[in-house]
Amino acid sequence: MSDTRPVVRLRPKAEARAIRHGFPWVYADELVVDRRTKAIAPGTIAVLEDGERRPLGTVTVNPNSKIIARMMDRDPEAQIDRAWIAARLERALALRARLFEQPFYRLVHAEADGLPGVIIDRFGDAAVIQPNAAWSDVMLADLEAALVEVTGVSIVLKNGSGRARTLEGLPEETTLLRGTLDAPIQVPMNGATYMADLLGGQKTGLFYDQRPNHAFAARLAHGARVLDVFSHVGGFGLAALAAGAESALAVDGSAPALALAEQGAAAMGASERFTTRQGDAFDTLEALSGEGAQFDLVICDPPAFAPAKPALQAGLRAYDRIARMAAPLVAPGGYLVLCSCSHAADLQAFRSACTRGIGKAARSGQLLHTGYAGPDHPMQPQLAESGYLKALFYRLDG
Amino acid sequence: MSDTRPVVRLRPKAEARAIRHGFPWVYADELVVDRRTKAIAPGTIAVLEDGERRPLGTVTVNPNSKIIARMMDRDPEAQIDRAWIAARLERALALRARLFEQPFYRLVHAEADGLPGVIIDRFGDAAVIQPNAAWSDVMLADLEAALVEVTGVSIVLKNGSGRARTLEGLPEETTLLRGTLDAPIQVPMNGATYMADLLGGQKTGLFYDQRPNHAFAARLAHGARVLDVFSHVGGFGLAALAAGAESALAVDGSAPALALAEQGAAAMGASERFTTRQGDAFDTLEALSGEGAQFDLVICDPPAFAPAKPALQAGLRAYDRIARMAAPLVAPGGYLVLCSCSHAADLQAFRSACTRGIGKAARSGQLLHTGYAGPDHPMQPQLAESGYLKALFYRLDG
Repeated sequence: MSDTRPVVRLRPKAEARAIRHGFPWVYADELVVDRRTKAIAPGTIAVLEDGERRPLGTVTVNPNSKIIARMMDRDPEAQIDRAWIAARLERALALRARLFEQPFYRLVHAEADGLPGVIIDRFGDAAVIQPNAAWSDVMLADLEAALVEVTGVSIVLKNGSGRARTLEGLPEETTLLRGTLDAPIQVPMNGATYMADLLGGQKTGLFYDQRPNHAFAARLAHGARVLDVFSHVGGFGLAALAAGAESALAVDGSAPALALAEQGAAAMGASERFTTRQGDAFDTLEALSGEGAQFDLVICDPPAFAPAKPALQAGLRAYDRIARMAAPLVAPGGYLVLCSCSHAADLQAFRSACTRGIGKAARSGQLLHTGYAGPDHPMQPQLAESGYLKALFYRLDG
Repeated sequence: MSDTRPVVRLRPKAEARAIRHGFPWVYADELVVDRRTKAIAPGTIAVLEDGERRPLGTVTVNPNSKIIARMMDRDPEAQIDRAWIAARLERALALRARLFEQPFYRLVHAEADGLPGVIIDRFGDAAVIQPNAAWSDVMLADLEAALVEVTGVSIVLKNGSGRARTLEGLPEETTLLRGTLDAPIQVPMNGATYMADLLGGQKTGLFYDQRPNHAFAARLAHGARVLDVFSHVGGFGLAALAAGAESALAVDGSAPALALAEQGAAAMGASERFTTRQGDAFDTLEALSGEGAQFDLVICDPPAFAPAKPALQAGLRAYDRIARMAAPLVAPGGYLVLCSCSHAADLQAFRSACTRGIGKAARSGQLLHTGYAGPDHPMQPQLAESGYLKALFYRLDG
């Protein structure tokens, strides 16, 4: 079998040590990219060799991607088939089954779960696959079949939106692969109920990554007046209501997202404590300030202001601005939660921007807690970049 | 009143901006240290001025410390007395009362709680003060009285051990200031029961900082064989037993600490699942390896291998070594928790050392979670150094 597979080779001077020590990617400039390699169809399984022709493992190749090869298996003769995928899924499922009482979680987090570039979110009986590397597009039928076999889900969607696929040169599309789905799914999390509209795509789906940060915010929420800015379908706000918040106001630019948040609040019997405002977050923060509004807990969970390095400085200024505009709305002794899902802004840079913004608002305080994505979003230890999500919990003085 | 207080002044070129933006310390080389300043008694309250004689706030001065002045209050005329201390304690208590159901926590975490250099841990009806800055030694009677007034505790100890006091030039001593205490105190935390011997000092007291990390480890512990290395009084091991671990083995060099761990297990009715081994951690890891022992959850929570910069490289090698020796003891699919309380080793350096050590043991895996000290250990946002505690949760492949 291995003799039928193409071989790709590191350049003579390329460092094989990182790969040997577990680094899972080969960049295009590290590989001998001859005409033969260029002609390899995206997603092809190949054998990776070092400069001295010693095999390093089984990889998947995509000549259209800057990450030209991704390690699939350290065994250079591994057979990448449905059974291989199922074994990886079993391992991923075992972790989630230990961590969570109910089957609502990110089941597969790409490289860290041994399925390069593949994201799978599970919503009870439904699952959404994001095949963000070419091999998983090619093997989608096997991936779907293995997923059904291992988890027993009856509804499977393919979500083909997002930046990761663009970088891989893959087209955008969201389709139902199996089963039927005609309404949002109720998702229980941290005692709250969220409505996930999986067919609506990224804008109205649900992100599990903030789960532990929702939980920490909920500890601060009993009896509190809560402002949830960039609320999406109500992530922080509904968790706060479940924990006994006096009220929650959700602000978002998306009317469909806010409608789902309202449905979630209704399912929780918390509609009377829940209000929404559709609009630009910065404008709304300014308007609330003008109204003299005060909250005991303010959360700002914006989209990535600094998704990549060129946007870093502008992104940090935007985080600074958000902090400066949100801090005046926090009552004395209240809490301010500032989040970043920017890959390019590391914790220290993000924290400095936030602390600076709070200072500009003439407020001071304590940093109580730093949270990351939940454990259903594990990291490949060698890919520090995958630690994109940061949440800072401040308590502000009077 | 302010005219009776000494004035200290930043050097003309010293940067007052950091102080104005909330940085709470003045280093000796930033201050005009004339004969008059040198003669100020350690712990004296003074007014800090910038190079242009504009007041910056009320500080406490200690000419024997590298941190020659610490900001007490942004108000240059603030009266630092029992009522002032009580107000700070009220603010600190309000946070802990919100976070914890029972009165067992770090009540005051120094600068972040507005009481520079002061640590106060609460154990129900008892509290331990660590007056690690000179002013708090001078005002200890006021601190004690305010503490009793605000919290109602009836037992107060002064713990004068530790490196922080040495740096301030303060003597070591642990004394009972109020009430009586003749037995270890039972401390409920994460469903476990710990025995804290407060008079025994640091070696047999209890640290609250690992609480959220104990809790996260407990989520991985159901049905597991647990190895808790550098267990102290049983921090991780007893939390794992409370969460349904099949067994826990605690390893520590201190016989008194292990005896307290055994008492804790007994109080939990978990003695049959709990064993201890007294001895050097490295030796014991090697011995367990020789015995072919396997565990589903291994935790290593060593003392600070890199407490300060000169020890950084040796410290990182020690973390690497611990990871390399502990990884082979983790069963396939099991969990490895590696902790550092080293100020000098930042998260990235510590994580690299751990990942490297795991790699040397020919294991690979996922990084599930990064934990810090709990929220009763808030940070002054400008003092990144105070984020000393790191806990990395790995899951290791077969």
